[in-house]
Amino acid sequence: MAVSKEPHRLILFTDAVVAIAVTLLVLPLVDIVPEVAKEHGEAIEVITKHQPEVWTFLLSFVVIIRFWLAHHRAYQHVRAYSTPLILCNAGWLLAIVVLPFPTEVVGVFQSDRFTTGFYIGTIFAVSALQTAMTLIIRADAAVASEENPPTPELAISSATATVLLAAALVVALALPAISYWALFLLLLSAPVEQVLRRRQRVAAEA
Amino acid sequence: MAVSKEPHRLILFTDAVVAIAVTLLVLPLVDIVPEVAKEHGEAIEVITKHQPEVWTFLLSFVVIIRFWLAHHRAYQHVRAYSTPLILCNAGWLLAIVVLPFPTEVVGVFQSDRFTTGFYIGTIFAVSALQTAMTLIIRADAAVASEENPPTPELAISSATATVLLAAALVVALALPAISYWALFLLLLSAPVEQVLRRRQRVAAEA
Amino acid sequence: MAVSKEPHRLILFTDAVVAIAVTLLVLPLVDIVPEVAKEHGEAIEVITKHQPEVWTFLLSFVVIIRFWLAHHRAYQHVRAYSTPLILCNAGWLLAIVVLPFPTEVVGVFQSDRFTTGFYIGTIFAVSALQTAMTLIIRADAAVASEENPPTPELAISSATATVLLAAALVVALALPAISYWALFLLLLSAPVEQVLRRRQRVAAEA
Amino acid sequence: MAVSKEPHRLILFTDAVVAIAVTLLVLPLVDIVPEVAKEHGEAIEVITKHQPEVWTFLLSFVVIIRFWLAHHRAYQHVRAYSTPLILCNAGWLLAIVVLPFPTEVVGVFQSDRFTTGFYIGTIFAVSALQTAMTLIIRADAAVASEENPPTPELAISSATATVLLAAALVVALALPAISYWALFLLLLSAPVEQVLRRRQRVAAEA
Repeated sequence: MAVSKEPHRLILFTDAVVAIAVTLLVLPLVDIVPEVAKEHGEAIEVITKHQPEVWTFLLSFVVIIRFWLAHHRAYQHVRAYSTPLILCNAGWLLAIVVLPFPTEVVGVFQSDRFTTGFYIGTIFAVSALQTAMTLIIRADAAVASEENPPTPELAISSATATVLLAAALVVALALPAISYWALFLLLLSAPVEQVLRRRQRVAAEA
Repeated sequence: MAVSKEPHRLILFTDAVVAIAVTLLVLPLVDIVPEVAKEHGEAIEVITKHQPEVWTFLLSFVVIIRFWLAHHRAYQHVRAYSTPLILCNAGWLLAIVVLPFPTEVVGVFQSDRFTTGFYIGTIFAVSALQTAMTLIIRADAAVASEENPPTPELAISSATATVLLAAALVVALALPAISYWALFLLLLSAPVEQVLRRRQRVAAEA
Repeated sequence: MAVSKEPHRLILFTDAVVAIAVTLLVLPLVDIVPEVAKEHGEAIEVITKHQPEVWTFLLSFVVIIRFWLAHHRAYQHVRAYSTPLILCNAGWLLAIVVLPFPTEVVGVFQSDRFTTGFYIGTIFAVSALQTAMTLIIRADAAVASEENPPTPELAISSATATVLLAAALVVALALPAISYWALFLLLLSAPVEQVLRRRQRVAAEA
Repeated sequence: MAVSKEPHRLILFTDAVVAIAVTLLVLPLVDIVPEVAKEHGEAIEVITKHQPEVWTFLLSFVVIIRFWLAHHRAYQHVRAYSTPLILCNAGWLLAIVVLPFPTEVVGVFQSDRFTTGFYIGTIFAVSALQTAMTLIIRADAAVASEENPPTPELAISSATATVLLAAALVVALALPAISYWALFLLLLSAPVEQVLRRRQRVAAEA
C-alpha cells in the first residue's frame, strides 16, 4: 500500500477509549448511592460500607493512568504503524476496556483465587501487550521515529513491570491469602529498573 | 458554499463515537457482578454462568475495531466530504451506536431467528454503509484525495465483507440452528478477496 | 488578555461531549433487555413491546447529529472565541447533555403535555442557542473568520429551525393530542429557507 | 530524556475525560424515569419529586465546565509538561472523575455534614490542584510558554477560588444547616480578585 501509516488517528482513538474506560470506573460507585438510600442507610455508608469498591476504583484509576502514560511515552517514538503494532494496540485496548469488569468483581466479592487472578491477570495482559508494542517499535525501522528513536529505557521499564506483574499473579494464585496485595511487588520496579539501567550503561561503555 | 469541507472534524467526531460505543460494551458485564452477588453466587459465576455475554462482548469488540480500521483506511483517501458521504457516515454511526443493543440481546437470550437476525443485520448495515462510503469516495473526484487516490482493493475488501454478511444473514434466518456461527462465513473474505484482486490485476494487465 | 482565543480546543471538547451524549442514548435500550428476560418475555419483545423507546432513540439520534452538523458549519467561520460565544456554547452543551433525559421520559411515559413540552422544549433550547451563536459569529468581527466569513444562509437556516421549533412547542402544549408529531413542522424548514434566501438575494441585487 | 514533552496529547486526553464526566452526570436523571414509571407516578414527577437531583446535576455541570475553562486558560501557557504537572493533572482528573459520585450522594440524601463535606471537598480538591498547576506553570521556565507567558491573573483567580472553597468547606462542616449554600461564597471571587489585581498593579507601578 502506498497509504500513509501516520499514527495520529490511532493515538486519538486510543486516548478516547482510555478516557472513557477510566471515567466509567466511577459508575459502580454512583450506583451504590440509591441502593444505600433504599435500605434507609445513612449517606456516609456509601463509603464506610463500600470501602472495597472505593479502593479498587482508586487502584484501577491509577493503573489505567499509569498505562496511558506508558503508551504516551512509547508512541512518541512511532512514526508509522504496522499491522503487528495495530493488533497489539487492539489487544491492549481490549484489556483496558475489560478492566472495569474485574474491578467491579474485586469490589463486590470477597477476594478469592478467581477474583484476584482475574484482576491481576487483566493488568498483566495490558502490561505484556505494552511490552510487546515497545519491542515492535524498537525492532521495526519502518515503525520507529528516526528523529526520536526509542530508548532502551522504555523496553526495560515496560518489561520490568510485566515480569513483576507475572510474579504478582503467581503469588496471588499460589497464596490466596495474600490476594491483590501481591501488586505491591510493583514497588520493586523502581530499584529493579535502576539496576538494569546501570548494567546497561556499563555494558555500553565497555 | 465556499466553505472548506475538510474532513478532520468529521473524523474526530466519528472516532469519539466509536470509542464510546466500544467501551460501553463492557457495562452489561459490569452489571452482572452485583446481580450474581445478590443471588449469593460465587465470584467465578460472573463468567462461568454468563459465557454468552462474555463471548458476544468479545465478538462485538472485534467487529467494532475491525470497522473502525476499515473506516480509517477509507478516509485516508478523503480530502473533502460531500453530503452523501456525511449521510452515509451518519447511518454508519447509527449502526455502530445501536450495536450494544443487539449485543445485549444475543448475550441474554437464547439464540432464535430474531436474535441472530437483529445482530447480524446490524453488522450487515455497518458493512453496507462502509461499502457505500468506499464507492462514494471512488466515484466523486471532489471527495477523493488526489495525492492519495482510493485503491480498488478498498472497495473489493468492503464489498466482499458486505456480501458475505448478507449471506450469513440469509443462512442464519433460513437455518436458525446455525445461529450466529453463520458469521464464520467472514473467514472466506481473505481467499475471496485474493481471487478478486488477482482477476483485477490480470484484467488491468490485459 | 494577550492570550490566543483559537477555538480548536473548545471545538474538540464540544465534539467529545456530543459524541458521548449521542452514544449514551442507546443505554436505555440496552437496559430493556434484562428486564424483558426477567419477565420471561421473548427476545423480539425488546423491540415490539418497546417501540416508543426505539422511536425516540432514533429521533434523538437524528436531532443530535443534525445539531452537530449545524455547529460544525457555524464554527468553520470562527477564528477566535469570545466570552458570549463560550457561554452560549456551554448552554448548548448543557441542552445536548440533558437530551437523553427527556428522551427517556418520552420513551417510557404516555405522551402528555409535560412530556412533549419537556422534549420539544429541550430541542428548542439547543436550536435557540445555536441561533444565538450564529448571530454572535456574524456580529463580532473579532470572532468571525476573515478568509471564510459567515454567510447569511447560516443565520437564516438556524433561525428558521428555531422559529419552527417554537411553533411546534406552542402547538404541542396547546393541543396535547398532537404530541410530538408537532415536530413535523420542521419539514417546513426547507421551503421556508428557500423563500427567505430568494428574498435576500433579490434584496441584495436591488 | 531527549523526548519532546509537548502537552498536546495530555490536553486531548484531559478533555476527553472531562467531556465524559460532564455527560455521565445525566445518567442518574435518566435512571429516575423507569423508577417513577414503576411506581405509577406521573411523568412530571421525574422533575417535581426529584428536584435535588436536578439542581445538583446543574450545579455539577457548571462546576465541571468552569474548571475545564480554567484548565484551558492555564494550559495555553504550557509549552512542555513536567512530572509534577502530570501528577497534578492526574489528581485533578481523579477529582473530576469522582465528582458524579458526591453529586449523586447530594441528590439522593438529605444534606448532612458528610454529604456537603464530600461534595464541597471534592470541588475544593479540583480547585487546589488547579492552583497547584498554575503555580507549577509560573515557577518552571521549562514548562511555561515563552511567547505566551502565564499572567499573574491566572494564579490570583485560581487561588481565590481555592481559598473561598476552603472557607465554604469549613462553614458547611461547622454549620450543617447552611449546607452547600456555603458554595455561594464563590460569588465573592469576582470582587476579591478585583481587589487583588488592583493591589498587584499598584505594587507593580510603585
